[in-house]
Order: sequence, then structure tokens, then C-alpha cells
Amino acid sequence: MSILVVGSVAFDTVETPFGRAERVLGGSASFFAVAASFFVPVNLVGVVGRDFGEKQLAAFAGRNIDLEGLERTEGLTFLWEGKYSYDLNSRETIRTDLNVFEFFKPRIPASYRSSDVVFLGNIDPVLQREVLEQVSKPRIVACDTMNFWISRKAEELRKTLAKVDVLLVNDAEARELSGEWNIVKAARAIRAMGPHSDEGSFAAPAFPLENVFDPTGAGDTFAGGFLGYLAGAAGPGDQELRRAIIMGSTLASFCVEAFSLDRLLTITRKEIDARFRQFLELTRFSE
Amino acid sequence: MSILVVGSVAFDTVETPFGRAERVLGGSASFFAVAASFFVPVNLVGVVGRDFGEKQLAAFAGRNIDLEGLERTEGLTFLWEGKYSYDLNSRETIRTDLNVFEFFKPRIPASYRSSDVVFLGNIDPVLQREVLEQVSKPRIVACDTMNFWISRKAEELRKTLAKVDVLLVNDAEARELSGEWNIVKAARAIRAMGPHSDEGSFAAPAFPLENVFDPTGAGDTFAGGFLGYLAGAAGPGDQELRRAIIMGSTLASFCVEAFSLDRLLTITRKEIDARFRQFLELTRFSE
Repeated sequence: MSILVVGSVAFDTVETPFGRAERVLGGSASFFAVAASFFVPVNLVGVVGRDFGEKQLAAFAGRNIDLEGLERTEGLTFLWEGKYSYDLNSRETIRTDLNVFEFFKPRIPASYRSSDVVFLGNIDPVLQREVLEQVSKPRIVACDTMNFWISRKAEELRKTLAKVDVLLVNDAEARELSGEWNIVKAARAIRAMGPHSDEGSFAAPAFPLENVFDPTGAGDTFAGGFLGYLAGAAGPGDQELRRAIIMGSTLASFCVEAFSLDRLLTITRKEIDARFRQFLELTRFSE
Repeated sequence: MSILVVGSVAFDTVETPFGRAERVLGGSASFFAVAASFFVPVNLVGVVGRDFGEKQLAAFAGRNIDLEGLERTEGLTFLWEGKYSYDLNSRETIRTDLNVFEFFKPRIPASYRSSDVVFLGNIDPVLQREVLEQVSKPRIVACDTMNFWISRKAEELRKTLAKVDVLLVNDAEARELSGEWNIVKAARAIRAMGPHSDEGSFAAPAFPLENVFDPTGAGDTFAGGFLGYLAGAAGPGDQELRRAIIMGSTLASFCVEAFSLDRLLTITRKEIDARFRQFLELTRFSE
């Protein structure tokens, strides 16, 4: 039972209404790996530069995260700088230095190739497919994408979607990808492209927090909690999928309480399970 | 067991991306009354002009809605005209002719004064208090309000809130009223002003519809389903409140499927209960 994640490992400089963090650990694979590692061993594939040192690596230490696939190369690590609006609902990208990530060609170590679950972070859909060509029969393949790929590489993205079971996107991305404004219709159109074809709906709220500090990484953390839980579950039936969604929201709710991975690195499995039960309490009603 | 609603009865001219309806029945008390009448007898207090005829009254006929409190006076009925954005998330008011509603002074008929539950629609908070002075010990008092009263009559609104058990507002209104951006903090600040003081949270989604046709009246219809269900329930305990919220969302989900009260006037209790169960299916998960 293991999970493979392919994505970015980066430095983030983030400004929110509550403060500023300079060159802190970020990247989709970082958030995903730490979240998923609460449930199953994680195999990480990514690339960093010479400026990525022991201090950053410490975040992954002592966890179920294998770093054989984290390539270290000449040059600088991917750097993203962004500033959030006062309501945290939108953000402006101030700087994107792809650096070594620009030439990232995912190479999957032999020991990772039989991972049960694969998460393709938000990278070029051509690279996402190249990852799938290097692995053998994963039980679940999930992927992320973004407006950039939806508009610039629509055909390549379609080919990738034909090979995945789960697509993780937000409402705006679902609308752009499907061409349907209505979310029910958008989901149906996307399912027809490949992802998980059974019709079914589950609605879960975000956890109501008093202090949302920094939303960076929430989506990848959700993905890590969701797929980590599914990888460890008996099967991807309706009930497991629902619990996995709640587990993803649970992890994401911790992520946004602090900058970078700061909160994710201090939580315990006990705290995770307690918040999962709070979700149950928050949403349950009877006939 | 009965429920008193005080609010507007109006003509609406509505344009959505899907069509246009001219001078159709609208108004907070109209939507509320029809929704609540599925559960308990409704006593309606409002005012219409001479242009409000048998055709409009037919909407209330054959239902548990008492119209003794619907005053008919010289002049024209309140007319609202609005146009929705392509995504239905915002609307522009093109025309508001208050007409007879401008001088509305709610007079509660003697037979209405012992109503168990009172809903104060979105009117001047001074008038909302005048209604409460005319009734005797209702079990539950709920009210609506809007940005206009929050900004123009803040002090009067505070005095009204001190006398109500339930405040029904959207996120923007909660933020403006409390001065808190965070919704958890906003709810706490508002509870300190009077409404229902027990701490507790319940999160419910909107019902995912394939065709949302016209959102007009959804909030008042939610209020009607919510308070109608509560009025008929054993008590306003945590479980009853949760079911009432789902019942409000259920009624509102029918409301938005057509213009005006068109869909509310054709649904059956059986359809309502079936969609309530779909909500249960949509949201449930286990530990």
C-alpha cells in the first residue's frame, strides 16, 4: 500500500492580510506528501535546486515519505510569490520563477512503479501521461490541473483525462474544462472524458474556522488527505469516497491555519480524527 | 399551531438568462406563506393595491393561508423589477415602486395575535418591533433584514434583534451587521445581539440542481420551509433545527426551478419529502 505523487517542490513567498512569509517550503508535492503520509507511505517525485537544503528536507524527515525520487539538480528551486486579497478569496501572482522546474522530466524510480495510487500534480498533461507510462497498473489514478493547461493544452489534457479515475478541480476549472456553467452538467461532461464514471453526488462544507491564515496549499493538502485515506481504505466504494472527501477537507482545514506546512507538521493523527468527527457533527441530521 | 408572516406582497418583473416574466406574483410574504403552508396554517399580513386581483389571490386559495390580514388599499401594489447576471449570482434592480407598501403599517388581526411562530419579513426594523408589540408570547420569533436597514437604521435594528430568536441573513449581511469578516466570528457577534444564544454549527449545501431558472424568492421560501417545519415540530432542539434548515433548503430548491411561485404552487408534500431524503443521501457519511 503506497502512493506516488509527482509535482512541484518549491519556495513560496506569501503575503496575506495577517502577515508575510519569505521563501518558505511550498509546492504541490510537498503539501500532498505530508498530508497523505498520515495514512500510507508516500513516494515523492519532484525536482529542487542547489538552494534547497537540509532545513527544507527536515519537513519530510521522520515521516512515511520516500525521497529517492526527489531530484537535485544545478540551478535554483521553483519560486512562487503571491499576495492574497483582504478576504483571502483571490490572489495575485507577483512572481513565478520556474527555475529547475521548467525542465522537469519526471523519472519514476523502479521501487515506485508499483505504487497503488498515483497523484499527478498540476503539471503539463504531457508529463502527466509520461508518468503513467512509467507505472504499472495503479489501483487509482488522480490528477489536478489548472486554467493554464485547460486553455493552452486542451487536447493533451483530454488524452490524460481518458487515463485517470479522479480529477480534482475547483468550480471555475470545472466550468472552463466542460464549457458548462451549471456544476451538475459540468461534472457530467467531465465524467464523459474519463474520470470515475458512476453518477453520484456528495456535498461537504469547508470546516468553519475562526482563523484562516493562509490558503496556500489547501487544494494539494485536500488531495493528500483524500487519496491517502483512499489508498489505506478497503476499496473506493461510495462510503469510502465520502469519508475520503471529509478527510481531505479535514487536512486542508489544518493547512490554512498557518503559513507553509507549519500546521501540517505539528498535527497528530488524534487531532485529525477529532476534527473528522467534528465534521460529522457539523453536517449530520436525521429523517 | 400557526405561523404569522408580515412582509411584502408584490408584482415582480424579472429577467434571467433564461427568460423574462412580467408583473408576476412576488414579495417576501407570498413566497414565505406558500412554503410554510405545507406544514402549518399561515396568517398573512401585508398590503396590496387595487391592481391586485383574483388572478393573484388564486395562488393562496385552497391552501392553509389566512388572508384576513392582507389589506387592500387605494393605489398600486409594490412593484419590483430586476435583472440577473448571466451566472445568477448577482442582480441589478431596475425599478422599485414601493406604491402602497411605502406607507405599510402592519395591523395584526385579533385572531392572529396568538400565533406560535412569527416571521418578520424584510421591512423597517421599527415596523418589525411594532408587530411584536401586537402579538402575545410567540414561541419563536424570526426576522430577515438587508444591507439597507443595517446601514441606515443600525440602532433600530439592534433593538429589534434583542427581541428575536432567529435571524435569517446571508454571508454579506452577517459581515456588515457584525463588522466581522470571518463567518464564525460574525455569527458569535450577532448571537450576542439577541438571536438564539446557544453555540452550535450546522452546515448544509444548496441542492445541486441542473437547472436554476430564477433565484427570486429563494431566501423567503427557505424561511417559510424552515419556520413552517419548526412550527409543526415538537420543539426547537438541535435536531429539529437541523431538519428545519434542510426543509428550508428543500423548499428553496423548488422555488428556483421556475419564475415567481410557479413551481411552489405545483409541488406536493410527497415531492418535498422525497427531495428532503435526497439531501440526506447527498450529505451523509459515517465514521
